[in-house]
Amino acid sequence: MSMSRTKERLVVIGGDAAGMSAASQARRLKDPDRLEIVAFERGHFSSYSACGIPYWVGGDVDSRDRLIARTPEEHRARAIDLRMRTEVTEIDVGRGRVRARDVDSGAESWTSYDKLVIATGARPIRPDLPGVDAPGVHGVQTLDDGQALLDSLAATPGRRAVVVGAGYIGVEMAEAMINRGYEVTVVNRGSQPMATLDPDMGRLVNRAMEGLGITMVNDAEVTKILTGDGAGRRVRAVGTDAAEYPADVVILGIGVRPETALAQAAGLPLGAHGGLLTDLAMRVRGHENIWSGGDCVEVLDLVSGRMRHIALGTHANKHGQVIGTNVGGGYATFPGVVGTAVSKVCDLEIARTGLREKDARRAGLQYETVVIESTSRAGYYPDAAPMTVEMLAERRTGRLLGVQIVGREGAAKRVDIAAVALTAQMTVEEMTALDLGYAPPFSPVWDPVLVAARKAAAAVAKAPR
Amino acid sequence: MSMSRTKERLVVIGGDAAGMSAASQARRLKDPDRLEIVAFERGHFSSYSACGIPYWVGGDVDSRDRLIARTPEEHRARAIDLRMRTEVTEIDVGRGRVRARDVDSGAESWTSYDKLVIATGARPIRPDLPGVDAPGVHGVQTLDDGQALLDSLAATPGRRAVVVGAGYIGVEMAEAMINRGYEVTVVNRGSQPMATLDPDMGRLVNRAMEGLGITMVNDAEVTKILTGDGAGRRVRAVGTDAAEYPADVVILGIGVRPETALAQAAGLPLGAHGGLLTDLAMRVRGHENIWSGGDCVEVLDLVSGRMRHIALGTHANKHGQVIGTNVGGGYATFPGVVGTAVSKVCDLEIARTGLREKDARRAGLQYETVVIESTSRAGYYPDAAPMTVEMLAERRTGRLLGVQIVGREGAAKRVDIAAVALTAQMTVEEMTALDLGYAPPFSPVWDPVLVAARKAAAAVAKAPR
Repeated sequence: MSMSRTKERLVVIGGDAAGMSAASQARRLKDPDRLEIVAFERGHFSSYSACGIPYWVGGDVDSRDRLIARTPEEHRARAIDLRMRTEVTEIDVGRGRVRARDVDSGAESWTSYDKLVIATGARPIRPDLPGVDAPGVHGVQTLDDGQALLDSLAATPGRRAVVVGAGYIGVEMAEAMINRGYEVTVVNRGSQPMATLDPDMGRLVNRAMEGLGITMVNDAEVTKILTGDGAGRRVRAVGTDAAEYPADVVILGIGVRPETALAQAAGLPLGAHGGLLTDLAMRVRGHENIWSGGDCVEVLDLVSGRMRHIALGTHANKHGQVIGTNVGGGYATFPGVVGTAVSKVCDLEIARTGLREKDARRAGLQYETVVIESTSRAGYYPDAAPMTVEMLAERRTGRLLGVQIVGREGAAKRVDIAAVALTAQMTVEEMTALDLGYAPPFSPVWDPVLVAARKAAAAVAKAPR
Repeated sequence: MSMSRTKERLVVIGGDAAGMSAASQARRLKDPDRLEIVAFERGHFSSYSACGIPYWVGGDVDSRDRLIARTPEEHRARAIDLRMRTEVTEIDVGRGRVRARDVDSGAESWTSYDKLVIATGARPIRPDLPGVDAPGVHGVQTLDDGQALLDSLAATPGRRAVVVGAGYIGVEMAEAMINRGYEVTVVNRGSQPMATLDPDMGRLVNRAMEGLGITMVNDAEVTKILTGDGAGRRVRAVGTDAAEYPADVVILGIGVRPETALAQAAGLPLGAHGGLLTDLAMRVRGHENIWSGGDCVEVLDLVSGRMRHIALGTHANKHGQVIGTNVGGGYATFPGVVGTAVSKVCDLEIARTGLREKDARRAGLQYETVVIESTSRAGYYPDAAPMTVEMLAERRTGRLLGVQIVGREGAAKRVDIAAVALTAQMTVEEMTALDLGYAPPFSPVWDPVLVAARKAAAAVAKAPR
C-alpha cells in the first residue's frame, strides 16, 4: 500500500445516502490535510431518507427536516465541501474533471478530481404520456418532489388521488393519501399489486388494500393524463383505453431507473438495467479511480447469480460505507444482495427476499413452492395475527431460493431469517432445525418460517429428481 | 432398510410436547397394523404449552384449555393409546418393559416395548428449605401446577406475591402477578435478573422491572420460608439471612432440572447437567431402541461445542418430530442449539442467543464485546423505541459468538438474525453486509444488528492477535 503524502481531491456527485456516506467515511479515514472532499448536489437537501417521504406526506412524520440525517452545514463542519444546488453536467474521465453548473445562476465551472464517486441515484419513471407534465402530477423520489406534492395538495381543494403503479412506492403512497383523507384509486398495469411478490401473495395485498377503501384497478395501462381547461391546465383525470379515473392529484409510483445519463455520456460501463457496473469494492469496472454506489448501480443477486437494479436506502448506505473505506485507503467490499424488501399498507405487512417463481424460472432453476398459514404469536396469545408464508426451494439440493410473507404485526421482519439463510446458502432441511426465538408472545412453538421450511423440505424430498 | 411386517409396540413415557410429538409423527409414518403406540402421562393434561402458563396465570389467556394443543381424546382418535394419570415407575431395559402405576388406584402393571421414548421433561428446582412445602408455595412447571396456583390465589385474600428467582419463569411470573394486581417482590440470588444475559444487559431488565413497580431484591439467597400459625400453616414470608419479605403467595421460579430419576435408575447415560445423553438422531447413547427428547435431555451447543440443558418447548417439539420420524422408519436429526431465548416483562422485550461473556471464557475463547444503542424503527418514524444490542465476536476469526437484545417492540425477534448467523458460523464482518429488511416503519436504514456487527468487526480488527 503506497502512502502518498500529497494531498488528493475526492469529488462526489450526489449529496444523498451513498455519496455522503462515502464522503463521511473517507473523511473519517483521511483528514483534510491529505484528502480534500468536494461534493455536488443539485437539489436543496443532503443526506435524507427518501424512503421516509410517504410517511411525511401521509402525516406520520410531522416535518420534512426530520427526514434529514445530516444537513449541508453539518457536512461542511466535517470538512466536506458540499455545494448545494449545483448540478454536474459532464464527467471528463480523460482529464479527470467534472463540469458543474450552479442551478440558480447558471454559472459553470470545472473541478478536477483524483478520485471520483458517482452517486447520482435514480429517477422515477415518467411514462411518455400526453399530460404527464401537467400541474398536479407528481413523482416522489426526492425531498424536493415530496415538498412539491405537499404544496400542490395544499393548493387544491379536491380529495381524489390517483396513484399510478402498485409497487412499493405506489402502495406506500396509497396508504399516505388514505391517511390524509383522500379517496384513493390505484391504477396498476399488473394483475395484482406488488409485482415483487408472486401472484398469490400479491392477491392478499390487493384484498387488504380494498379492505382499506382503496379502489384497485388492476390490468390497466394508463394511456393519457387528462387536464382541465382552466388557466393552470391542472390534471383532472387519468385515462386508460377502457376508462377515466377523476383525479385532483396524480402520484406516479411506477418505479425508478438508474440516473446514469452522465455516466453513459462519459463512456462508463452500464448493465442491462441501465445501472453502472462495478466490482465488489464498488469501483466502476475498468476505472481505477472511480467508484459508484446507491440507486445508480447494478448489484449482484447472490441467489440467481444475475445483476439487478434495486433502489433502496439500506444498500446505498452500505455502498457508501464500502466506497468511503476504499477511497480512504482501507479495504471493504459489498458482496451483493439477496433481494430483501419490506413494506406495509396500514397494518398489513409485506416482505420478500430471494427469488419469486418467475425469477427462478428465468434463472433456469427447478424449484418447489409451498405456502403455509400460521400466526405471529402462539395461537392462544392475545392479538395472534394470521401470517402467510410462501417458500421456494431448489429441487435436488433443497437450497432455499426465496421467501415471501404477508401478514400483520410481526410478519415483515421475520423475512430476515430467510435473508440470512439465503446468504448462508442454507437448505430448507437445515432451516427446519434453526434455533429461532420462541415464547408465546412472539411466536408459535413452531415459528411460521420453520413451518414453511418443514413443508418445503417435504416437497423437495418428494419431488422428481 | 428392513421392512419388518411384524407389529411392534412403541412405548412413550410422558404425554407432553416431546413425547406426543414423537408419538404423532410415528403414527403418521406407520399405521396401527404395524405399530402399536402406548403413552403414559402421570398428570391430568396432554400436549399443552407449559410456556403459556404465566400468561394464563396473568390473565392474558382466559382459559386453561386454550393451552392444550391436543387432548387425550384427540390422541386416542389417532390410534395412540394415551393413558392419563399413569406414572411409569421403572424402566427395565434388559427385558424391554416399563412398570406403570395408576396414580389414583395405585394399581401397577408391566408393559413391554420394542421401542421406547423417554420424554419425562423437567422438574422445577425446589430448594431444600424449611417451609418450602407449605401451602401457598407454588412451582409453575405443569398445567397441574398452574391450576394449583390459581386455586390457591382464589382462596387467599392477600395481595403480596414473592417470586423466588429471576430467570425466564421468574420474570414472566412477576409480570403475571403484577397483571393480577399483586404487590410483587422478586428475590434473586444473582446481582441482576436474567442470568442468561451478561450483567450490563441484565441491569437494563432490572431497571425496567423496577419501573413497573416490582420490588427487586438482588444478591439475596432465600434461607427459609416462614409459615403462619393457623391451621393450614400457610406461607407468610420469605426469609433471607438479612431480611424477611411478607408473602401471601410464593412462586418458585428458580429453574428446572431434567427429570431423569427413572432413566438413571435404569442405568441410562446422563450428562453433567443430569440430562439424558443422545446421539443426533435423539437415540439414547448405547441403546438402539430407546430415544429421548425434550426437557429431560442435554443438547449440543453448536457455538461452544459443549452439552447444555435447555428446557424450551420449541426444542421439545423438534425433538419429538425427529424421534417420531426415526421411530417411524425415516431419518432425521437434531443438530443442536445456539441458545436462543426470548422473553418479555410487560412491554420490555429480552432476547439472547449464543454465548455470554462468561460462556465464552469458560469455553476458552478470546472475544471482543460491543454494545450499541439504536431504535426499532427509523428514528423519525412514530413509536421508534430504543434498543440495546450486545454482540460478542471471536478474536482472529471474527466469528459471531453471541447477541443479546433488550428493548421494546421489535427487539426480541431480531435475535433470530443472529441465531441464523450463528448456525451458519458467519463472521461479524460478513454480517455487516446482510441484506436485512429495511423500511422506515420496521428498521433504521442500518438495522441495529448491522450497527452492532459493524462495531464488532471494527473491534476484532483492532484487537491484538
